Amino acid sequence: MSVLEDVTTPQVIIDRDVLDRNITRMAASVAGKGLRLRPHAKTHKVLQIADRQLAAGAVGLTVATIGEAEVFADHGVEDLFIAYPLWITRPQAERLRRLSARARVSVGVDSVEGATTMGAALNGAAGQIAVLVEIDSGHHRSGASPDLAVEVARAADRAGLRVGGVFTFPGHSYAPGMPQQAVEQEQAALAEATELLTAAGYDASRRSGGSTPTATLTGPSVATEVRPGVYVFGDAQQLELERCGWDDIALSVAATVISRHDTGRGSPRRVVLDSGSKVLGSDRPAWATGHGRVIDHPEARITALSEHHATVVWPEESPLPVLGERLRVIPNHVCITMNLVDEVAVVSGGQIVDRWAVAARGKNY
Amino acid sequence: MSVLEDVTTPQVIIDRDVLDRNITRMAASVAGKGLRLRPHAKTHKVLQIADRQLAAGAVGLTVATIGEAEVFADHGVEDLFIAYPLWITRPQAERLRRLSARARVSVGVDSVEGATTMGAALNGAAGQIAVLVEIDSGHHRSGASPDLAVEVARAADRAGLRVGGVFTFPGHSYAPGMPQQAVEQEQAALAEATELLTAAGYDASRRSGGSTPTATLTGPSVATEVRPGVYVFGDAQQLELERCGWDDIALSVAATVISRHDTGRGSPRRVVLDSGSKVLGSDRPAWATGHGRVIDHPEARITALSEHHATVVWPEESPLPVLGERLRVIPNHVCITMNLVDEVAVVSGGQIVDRWAVAARGKNY
Repeated sequence: MSVLEDVTTPQVIIDRDVLDRNITRMAASVAGKGLRLRPHAKTHKVLQIADRQLAAGAVGLTVATIGEAEVFADHGVEDLFIAYPLWITRPQAERLRRLSARARVSVGVDSVEGATTMGAALNGAAGQIAVLVEIDSGHHRSGASPDLAVEVARAADRAGLRVGGVFTFPGHSYAPGMPQQAVEQEQAALAEATELLTAAGYDASRRSGGSTPTATLTGPSVATEVRPGVYVFGDAQQLELERCGWDDIALSVAATVISRHDTGRGSPRRVVLDSGSKVLGSDRPAWATGHGRVIDHPEARITALSEHHATVVWPEESPLPVLGERLRVIPNHVCITMNLVDEVAVVSGGQIVDRWAVAARGKNY
Repeated sequence: MSVLEDVTTPQVIIDRDVLDRNITRMAASVAGKGLRLRPHAKTHKVLQIADRQLAAGAVGLTVATIGEAEVFADHGVEDLFIAYPLWITRPQAERLRRLSARARVSVGVDSVEGATTMGAALNGAAGQIAVLVEIDSGHHRSGASPDLAVEVARAADRAGLRVGGVFTFPGHSYAPGMPQQAVEQEQAALAEATELLTAAGYDASRRSGGSTPTATLTGPSVATEVRPGVYVFGDAQQLELERCGWDDIALSVAATVISRHDTGRGSPRRVVLDSGSKVLGSDRPAWATGHGRVIDHPEARITALSEHHATVVWPEESPLPVLGERLRVIPNHVCITMNLVDEVAVVSGGQIVDRWAVAARGKNY
């Protein structure tokens, strides 16, 4: 890729052609199953990418914080789901109230106390905001046990909130061999909560699930919408989980070989790239081969990251890149990378055609 | 801490009183050994903290990129060491030239090719910039083997650069039981390179070493200056390495309990905080007890991080915090945290007294 020579490294590069293909394919796959697509925008935090997802048929966006929702509402996005069990303080309630005046807003809740506090803080505006009860489908992070969904819904109802359904995040799908099992647990948990909520007279018509590893597996069963995020770019985790191929990678980090050690001298045969954790992020599941992958060099292993250095060990039989050489690195977890940079270079047809701001970067609350 | 209730979480809080104590103590310790202190500013990236370090006697700052150097030079810092083996392109050479016109600039180099390329790119300005040869003292990241220091210095000299000494980073000191061994290897490597450089007629009068774990161990031996960074704040790594105490922690993340699971139901007894990897960062050495530590709750273990969630497992015998409760979390690696936020809340005497911008955040090149 000739653009590699045109940037200052480390530089995040988005291949817009691959991005558009990923967006179109996921939209078609989800629509083909009669599901609604509500992509998680925390992955990219970019207005231009949100526009492309909505143009391809997404019903709205998923975000993780009120701050992210504000950025996309300012841009005109009309339907926003904060898929997070918010604990609402007065200042946040005021922001949520303003947000709900200009967009359809739904939020998560996973406890009686959370629902009660939210209703009280929102006061008169509570009815404008739909709450979805978060349930735990096996990831064991947030989310109520499915058998407690009615208890949470009842508290929400008492607090003046409008119950709109359930959601779950099958995050345990991010491991080898797990996507199919995780999607089955996800559907079972959604089914259990839906049955209980419906029997108790609550609206469970919106049932939201899905992550990138499971979204394409989700059948027309219990879930009515899916919230994949990473699919727009792909990353080394999805690659190693075989949920995407090398040709589906839309985001890479251009990096320069700044140190090179071909002889042993008691240390590994390696190059050091300037793409440290400041741009690749440090996420590294135990099953990953390293801290990302090097495009065109599947044999290379990123064995260590510090903030400004990526140590890449090369096997003896493969020629070691030279000093100053530019390589393209795929981060393990692309959401982390996007949250580290203020803007990205956009490539189409092998040329830099644009720069996009990461508009919702750092909107931590 | 009452300020916990006054912020929106997750929020990075700097205790200025502890910060000042850490700055004063390190300055006194280093001066007491007859060494010069050149703190690594990548840890904080904050102008107000740089000012305090310089006022306490630091001879200048260390940074990792030209972009960071530019931010501090704009602020008036007169002596900047880019402790990194830069691979210089034309646009970067131009920036380095402008930088050297308004500050004393030194940079790293660890290869013949790097020195040659740098000299050629800097052209007439090469003589204004001092280069320090980076040597590997056992961390096996960047840095030439000490016996190759003369070869690199010769290339730098031929390329018109001014050789000013040697530097190393004993990064392998960041592990239990390693600081003392790492500092011995650091001094031995500096000694070997210094002897060879001096014998070959090169200036090796500036010998720079040191990390936070080793800086206070470094005796008045071979190194003439040290570059600790993390000492200003402390972090969970330093705490668990016993290189600082709980009372020395100047940076914490205020977080809210947003999900709580007291009963088993087949999942761990836990709370979930809103301080995910978006603010704590994902650095987690194998020897760490988890993804950070919780102040006032040494028994808690941060077992998992996702971007917006910190899962904290609590032992059965200890009462589980309630929903909405505010806790203070110490990140594993504080440099990562500072690179994730745009500003921090500053506390003194238990009150919020200021907000500081993280001026050099994201200056990746």
